[in-house]
Amino acid sequence: MKARVHVTLKNGVLDPQGKAIGDALHRLGFPEVEEVRQGKFIELDLTDGDPATAKARLDEMCRKLLANTVIENYRVELLG
Amino acid sequence: MKARVHVTLKNGVLDPQGKAIGDALHRLGFPEVEEVRQGKFIELDLTDGDPATAKARLDEMCRKLLANTVIENYRVELLG
Repeated sequence: MKARVHVTLKNGVLDPQGKAIGDALHRLGFPEVEEVRQGKFIELDLTDGDPATAKARLDEMCRKLLANTVIENYRVELLG
Repeated sequence: MKARVHVTLKNGVLDPQGKAIGDALHRLGFPEVEEVRQGKFIELDLTDGDPATAKARLDEMCRKLLANTVIENYRVELLG
């Protein structure tokens, strides 16, 4: 079973890495770029099991390790 | 216009960060986790324009800055 997790900074949290990417893109000749936000993308292979349990367990993994929920949001997708 | 870029390591390229996440998840009591791969997720706001041009420009951004195409794959989505 495959799962995908996106971890992104919450709105209003400064993103210096995204800002640096945006500035670099401007310097490279891409003036159409307005805002850039960088997040993390994590792909997990899980042993097969009940999808509802897997979803709940993934949620727990995000809260315990993958995301810092004070400043980050996460989104879990189970690909079956 | 919003765009999303996923940058992932190519198959066969070692991913120590993903390995560290997998090991930590095991220690935290998630033995169902097999492989973990970590990638980057970049959200861009672009000034409105022709979608086909924007897609081509995003492709160029990936090749020039966002991805190291020797070891990484990228995927661009334009959200209109």
